Amino acid sequence: MDYDPANCAIGAAVAILGERPTFLVLREAFNGVRRFADMQHRTGIPRQVLSDRLGRLVQQGLLRKVPYQDSGQRSRHEYRLTAKGLDLYPVLVGLMQWGDTYAGGPDGPPVVLQHRDCGERVQLQLACEAGHVLESARDVAPVPGPGARKIA
Amino acid sequence: MDYDPANCAIGAAVAILGERPTFLVLREAFNGVRRFADMQHRTGIPRQVLSDRLGRLVQQGLLRKVPYQDSGQRSRHEYRLTAKGLDLYPVLVGLMQWGDTYAGGPDGPPVVLQHRDCGERVQLQLACEAGHVLESARDVAPVPGPGARKIA
Repeated sequence: MDYDPANCAIGAAVAILGERPTFLVLREAFNGVRRFADMQHRTGIPRQVLSDRLGRLVQQGLLRKVPYQDSGQRSRHEYRLTAKGLDLYPVLVGLMQWGDTYAGGPDGPPVVLQHRDCGERVQLQLACEAGHVLESARDVAPVPGPGARKIA
Repeated sequence: MDYDPANCAIGAAVAILGERPTFLVLREAFNGVRRFADMQHRTGIPRQVLSDRLGRLVQQGLLRKVPYQDSGQRSRHEYRLTAKGLDLYPVLVGLMQWGDTYAGGPDGPPVVLQHRDCGERVQLQLACEAGHVLESARDVAPVPGPGARKIA
């Protein structure tokens, strides 16, 4: 891999995602939590930090703001995942599976994922276009793609 | 999902992974880069930050230090992924796929992943234990697992 990592997709993705508060906000969004107060209550992220991260995720097109108004209250916004945000789901599932394995408590996973149609457990897998399911990172060869640049 | 997110696996995973430099170090490790100087050259992470992140990844058991000695040089260490580190691979692939889609350059992806056995493109997918491949996050229902705690 003597190719320039400057235009790496992982680097670009992480630059957008930032850090812990951002992942926690996305986790709540995937759990169907849409309102500022609920996100704050569930994540414990300080108000100003949460506001900043939500704003950044809206600006980057992962969340969109939708107005709502409870009776007797002023109009507010809630936050919904866009297609770009929804497409991050495998990353969150990957973090969850890894956390369950290596950072989990003695009682087992706090959340399990089920296929809505059949109720069976869902997991992430690597598969190739010929339909083979891969067991390990060692079965994968990273090769330069069309956007690769040789290191100077 | 009115369950306490305090013991969330995603939160635990991100707390360990930290932020951008950590992901870049893991990316290099998955690309087979093992030596401090090579990592520094490829990532551009300042020496002290890189040293700190490598130390943390060793301490948390994602990398292990293995001594090596080039002729005429003093003994040094290189860094290799452990099983715990290797198991993060789906997360990195997920970040890469998402970055290729939403943060990619006009030339296409800088790296593509191939199945070593058959050469076909590899991608991440969600599948259930009944063998169904899921199309979207919307096909997944998160339900409380054995470790869930009710919110007070």
